Amino acid sequence: MMSTVDPAWLPAFVFRSVGARRVRIVGDGLLVDTVRGEVAAAGGVLVSEGPVDLDLVCEGDVGEKFTVERSGTTTTVRATGGAGLLYGFHHVVRQGEAAFSGVLAPQRHAPRQPIRMLDHWDNIDVHPVMGQVERGYAGGSIFYDNGVVRTDLTRVGAYARLLGSIGINRVGLNNVNVHRTEARLLTDLLPDVARLADVFRPHGIRVHLSVSFAAPMTLGGLPTADPLDPAVQDWWARTTAEVYAAIPDFGGYIVKADSEGQPGPFAYDRNHADGANLLARALAPFGGIVFWRAFVYNHRQDWRDRSTDRARAAYDHFVPLDGTFDENVVLQVKFGPIDFQAREPVSPVLSAMPQTRLAVELQVTQEYTGQQKHVCYLVPQWSEVLNSCTVDGIVAVSNVGEDEFWTGHPLAQANLYGFGRLAWDERLTPEQVLDEWITLTFENAQTVRKALHELMDDSWHTYERYTAPLGIGFMVRTGTHYGPDIDGYEYSPWGTYHFADRDGVGVDRTRATGTGFTGQYPKPWCDIYESLDMCPDELLLFFHHVPYTHVLHSGITVIQHIYDSHFAGRDEVAHMTEIWATLEGDVPAATFDRVTGLLNEQLRCATEWRDQVNTYFWRKSGIPDVHGRRIH
Amino acid sequence: MMSTVDPAWLPAFVFRSVGARRVRIVGDGLLVDTVRGEVAAAGGVLVSEGPVDLDLVCEGDVGEKFTVERSGTTTTVRATGGAGLLYGFHHVVRQGEAAFSGVLAPQRHAPRQPIRMLDHWDNIDVHPVMGQVERGYAGGSIFYDNGVVRTDLTRVGAYARLLGSIGINRVGLNNVNVHRTEARLLTDLLPDVARLADVFRPHGIRVHLSVSFAAPMTLGGLPTADPLDPAVQDWWARTTAEVYAAIPDFGGYIVKADSEGQPGPFAYDRNHADGANLLARALAPFGGIVFWRAFVYNHRQDWRDRSTDRARAAYDHFVPLDGTFDENVVLQVKFGPIDFQAREPVSPVLSAMPQTRLAVELQVTQEYTGQQKHVCYLVPQWSEVLNSCTVDGIVAVSNVGEDEFWTGHPLAQANLYGFGRLAWDERLTPEQVLDEWITLTFENAQTVRKALHELMDDSWHTYERYTAPLGIGFMVRTGTHYGPDIDGYEYSPWGTYHFADRDGVGVDRTRATGTGFTGQYPKPWCDIYESLDMCPDELLLFFHHVPYTHVLHSGITVIQHIYDSHFAGRDEVAHMTEIWATLEGDVPAATFDRVTGLLNEQLRCATEWRDQVNTYFWRKSGIPDVHGRRIH
Repeated sequence: MMSTVDPAWLPAFVFRSVGARRVRIVGDGLLVDTVRGEVAAAGGVLVSEGPVDLDLVCEGDVGEKFTVERSGTTTTVRATGGAGLLYGFHHVVRQGEAAFSGVLAPQRHAPRQPIRMLDHWDNIDVHPVMGQVERGYAGGSIFYDNGVVRTDLTRVGAYARLLGSIGINRVGLNNVNVHRTEARLLTDLLPDVARLADVFRPHGIRVHLSVSFAAPMTLGGLPTADPLDPAVQDWWARTTAEVYAAIPDFGGYIVKADSEGQPGPFAYDRNHADGANLLARALAPFGGIVFWRAFVYNHRQDWRDRSTDRARAAYDHFVPLDGTFDENVVLQVKFGPIDFQAREPVSPVLSAMPQTRLAVELQVTQEYTGQQKHVCYLVPQWSEVLNSCTVDGIVAVSNVGEDEFWTGHPLAQANLYGFGRLAWDERLTPEQVLDEWITLTFENAQTVRKALHELMDDSWHTYERYTAPLGIGFMVRTGTHYGPDIDGYEYSPWGTYHFADRDGVGVDRTRATGTGFTGQYPKPWCDIYESLDMCPDELLLFFHHVPYTHVLHSGITVIQHIYDSHFAGRDEVAHMTEIWATLEGDVPAATFDRVTGLLNEQLRCATEWRDQVNTYFWRKSGIPDVHGRRIH
Repeated sequence: MMSTVDPAWLPAFVFRSVGARRVRIVGDGLLVDTVRGEVAAAGGVLVSEGPVDLDLVCEGDVGEKFTVERSGTTTTVRATGGAGLLYGFHHVVRQGEAAFSGVLAPQRHAPRQPIRMLDHWDNIDVHPVMGQVERGYAGGSIFYDNGVVRTDLTRVGAYARLLGSIGINRVGLNNVNVHRTEARLLTDLLPDVARLADVFRPHGIRVHLSVSFAAPMTLGGLPTADPLDPAVQDWWARTTAEVYAAIPDFGGYIVKADSEGQPGPFAYDRNHADGANLLARALAPFGGIVFWRAFVYNHRQDWRDRSTDRARAAYDHFVPLDGTFDENVVLQVKFGPIDFQAREPVSPVLSAMPQTRLAVELQVTQEYTGQQKHVCYLVPQWSEVLNSCTVDGIVAVSNVGEDEFWTGHPLAQANLYGFGRLAWDERLTPEQVLDEWITLTFENAQTVRKALHELMDDSWHTYERYTAPLGIGFMVRTGTHYGPDIDGYEYSPWGTYHFADRDGVGVDRTRATGTGFTGQYPKPWCDIYESLDMCPDELLLFFHHVPYTHVLHSGITVIQHIYDSHFAGRDEVAHMTEIWATLEGDVPAATFDRVTGLLNEQLRCATEWRDQVNTYFWRKSGIPDVHGRRIH
């Protein structure tokens, strides 16, 4: 695989546009040193007195907030801790020349979320089919190679800097599905984890490990992993103490338990709180956190059984436990009730556990949204989610790998960038975030800005238009989750069905006649989703089974919407290829070529989606397109 | 994997029922020696004169035929060649005690086909997903292990003896999809092929290699594989001469060319006859044969394109070339026009090339017929095929592997046995063949005979009933080809579609309104298949797209037939499990346990087939079951 690091979007490069500056840095500590190194590396002149252009003042040891102000010829960043200074410095870098002109009254900046985390689903070993990174679309792991943690962590250093620059402060180093080799990161491979932690630390990032609930047995040789067994508690306490002896600022654990075959407390008739608190108590003396994933459901469902509703599962499992989790447990809840689909309602769990710390989990890696072969700028989706819930942390699955562009699709870098920015402040608009990214990424941002906005701003909706309609989800190829297969999951055990027949389509999740899932929402949403009249069009089939002739709020029928959106979505992709073609010569040739090739694939795949979905529903409904377009 | 050889069905064991006999053997040569060894190993007393129970007389060097007669107390087998004596001896063994009682006028026996061949789709290397044997369901290869030809060929010897006892006279040693390592069997791995040939030779079996048409380039370093290029011709001549220097009775080559991505003559604007004759001319000086497969079609079809019909492909490619193939080319034609489905019409190629030597290709390995997890006695299918065409050879894909029962499912041994017997004489009835197999396999055949007939005789029809209806085929999971996925291939590039919509189902292959495939058949079949009135029910959807309300010859509608056959087929499997349960204690415990476990899986899978097919067509048609049974 290619391992050249593309220079695109290494944020300090913005100094190229402002030239060398005189910079004074006050304070000390690792993160302040990091800032000092960044300035030096970018050609800034470090001075200790006299007139300065940039005054970076760190007045304490802890804190992520900072202020920035400008008077005379000096821009001043003030922070009460190294992390704040680092974030303030990167803020100035993002501002570019604008940070050094005019007058600015003191502006306070602080992250709106204390937890801003990226999880890696990286494995040490390479699976012959799944590859090394589960749901990874950018090549192998940047952490692991040849069955071990890499010796050369240069690239991890660049990644840490990149994450630090957008405010990420925690990273999960390994797949939540913890396999045999990866389990050992907790024990004999710990020195390697410490090396990784050393690389992330200067950028304000604490590392986490995904651990197996069965570790006391598989690693510790105990006969049980029962969370109430004193020997098990002791094993976790001792093991965790050893982790902190090696990595004093270790972040904590991530656990996928009793989910999709992973071990958990159910084997011992214990509940998720018993399980989570077991680990929380081992971590508490050291200030560590356990992220306990709420992604728990019956994945061996019988498609014939209409009483089981996967959408209900997280709520049914966890809400009754509200108030029983220790304070250093964070329940990590996928943003929607199913699984990272292009469109889902926000999970009802996020508004149902007031006495539990919650983190919302997003997916920067594009498992169901084009797998970094399709342009799909996801920040608008995340913006909707984050502005409709209140949580204590934001977590996402990373999309980087060995790929020379980091993310497979060069334009998918904008999702990684945007995730960090939204996690810092969810009130930033998607257009504003994309604009920042364009500015930081392309030398001639002014030339390419308009075209990139046109290509990317609405690309999530475009993707939605040519794939599964009206919130129904899935319809993807089984296993890979790429490309269309309308009935692919329809008779499967995974609990993801659309129930299309000759008369209609959709899942009845109402309280009146369906699975009752709508009842998991607070008012007014429990009524809005319940009501065929009020339910938003884009979620209609998630909540209701309706006839093809049902008229949407948009004024057209469901079947006509399916046809229209699929013709439109595919044509929008064709238009995207035209827009991109105009950028030849304005973006680096390698970037141009990569994106051109991927857009061809996106167009092929969108055409396939359009045709398969339209033909499928035409064959079932027998209702012709009112515009008489060709349906095969 | 287990490598214990199960003693079941090693045919000489029949001596157990007749005790030691006095046997005289006249003649010499390798095959006569083999017979001598068999008799000795079975406890027979070899005598040279005086009263004998069995007189085995070989009066020449060549020939597969033999006579058997009985007068006085002596049974006499006479042959004009070692192979005939071997077959005659095994004939007596099959007869058991009956061969040694009463009087029998001289009976002449001769195979009805000169070519009786088993192909192995074995690879040397193990594919991480496909395993070692392509479409193999009985564990790894008996020929190859750890990346090389096995050192210990004991088991291959048992297999050779087994094949010799049922009259198989040729074996293909490697997969027709020739990968990198396997290509080298032709060159540097040739000494290992010679060792395998040494093991097969005493049982009258010649070995063949599948070769890559690109071998002159990949192995020979030439810049081309053009069949008309003298350097290419020379390379094949030299390479083939070296093969015969190592293996004087080498059988010849098997080639899959210009099919599913394999290289072939099309790259050089040459046709299949150019390609086949190239190899034929290299083999001719040594009496070798090239088997050239007719399984050629567009496997990158667009499902939107209704003008391409995969069923037409073999005929369209090959029939125009009739008369242009050399005499030592055998065109190897799959029995049906598509691909080893449970039900297909017989390929029209088999009656359209009078000037070409043809072999029909069957599949003993149960790729589409339950993968040796389901009881599916295929001899009735083959009997129908072989009794409706005239060919110069019969070839099948083997179903054996490392499995302790040889074939995964112990009852699948009957398919291997039956293939050999039908290849020898297609007029044997399936019940008669099964009866022989039961007698040879089970110590207490009389006790288990009735139950096994009840379980197996009609099991092919049972399988047909619970899977794809009325000859439409496929509807299997993509890739693995196991279990139901009604739309699995519907929008794929493979050319295997059912075109079900809300009104009807089936492929219109008529001349009047469809792809014209019916026109490839001679009279009367071109008219029978063309006619909705005359087309046999079991092939209706192969040839016609009909409404669900179409009434079959059976008097019920297509949709009701789908429901009825699926309820019936699944219930027949439930009955099979009951029958088998009665055999506990009457068959070896290991056999009982294995079959019991597999029948449970068959019942689970048949239930899934029933429910998915019925639900699929109920959702599409909206027509209820007239008997009101539960459809989900």
